[in-house]
Amino acid sequence: MSSSVVYNRDIPLTDLGGGVSRKVLAHNDQLMIVEVRFEKGGVGSMHTHPHLQSTYVQSGRFVFTIDGVEHEVAQGDTIAFASDVPHGTVCLEAGVLVDIFNPMREDFLK
Amino acid sequence: MSSSVVYNRDIPLTDLGGGVSRKVLAHNDQLMIVEVRFEKGGVGSMHTHPHLQSTYVQSGRFVFTIDGVEHEVAQGDTIAFASDVPHGTVCLEAGVLVDIFNPMREDFLK
Repeated sequence: MSSSVVYNRDIPLTDLGGGVSRKVLAHNDQLMIVEVRFEKGGVGSMHTHPHLQSTYVQSGRFVFTIDGVEHEVAQGDTIAFASDVPHGTVCLEAGVLVDIFNPMREDFLK
Repeated sequence: MSSSVVYNRDIPLTDLGGGVSRKVLAHNDQLMIVEVRFEKGGVGSMHTHPHLQSTYVQSGRFVFTIDGVEHEVAQGDTIAFASDVPHGTVCLEAGVLVDIFNPMREDFLK
């Protein structure tokens, strides 16, 4: 596994609909950085996955629901998600989440 | 391993000297998010570690040296470091790096 530098400007934005778009940035088998951009009111629907996820709020304001409990987060706040925990988010103020997955999300590269 | 929300405001800043300071944010055994703040001219000395590391540039401008090669990065750019690769950085414009480690850095909690 070698090192790699991935410049934001080189990655096209994938429109996920509903005011949400995504860039898959630097990744290897074990770590993947994904930038997810939300317009106000954009929704990340409740879902689960076996991958560990951690999230850094780069900007904006969000309410996350994690295992049925709501948490409001803003710039610089962070979340460590357990494997398979149900989670979702609603964007209160437009912003960007930095999601990190371990292992990487192969489904994001298809 | 349960989920956890770590608010930036709740974590004290650790001064590492030389214009560099650090906050260890959300983490579990396998993933750790660390915010590293740099003043202009701040240096992250060349070092290696077996942990995988990925870095997201939250703000500012930096030159990284990775395995002897220089890379200039700015807001939104990302790096996936190989295990044990020699790396270091110099800050060109004040900013914040978001470093993610797999597994977590136990040495950062001492």
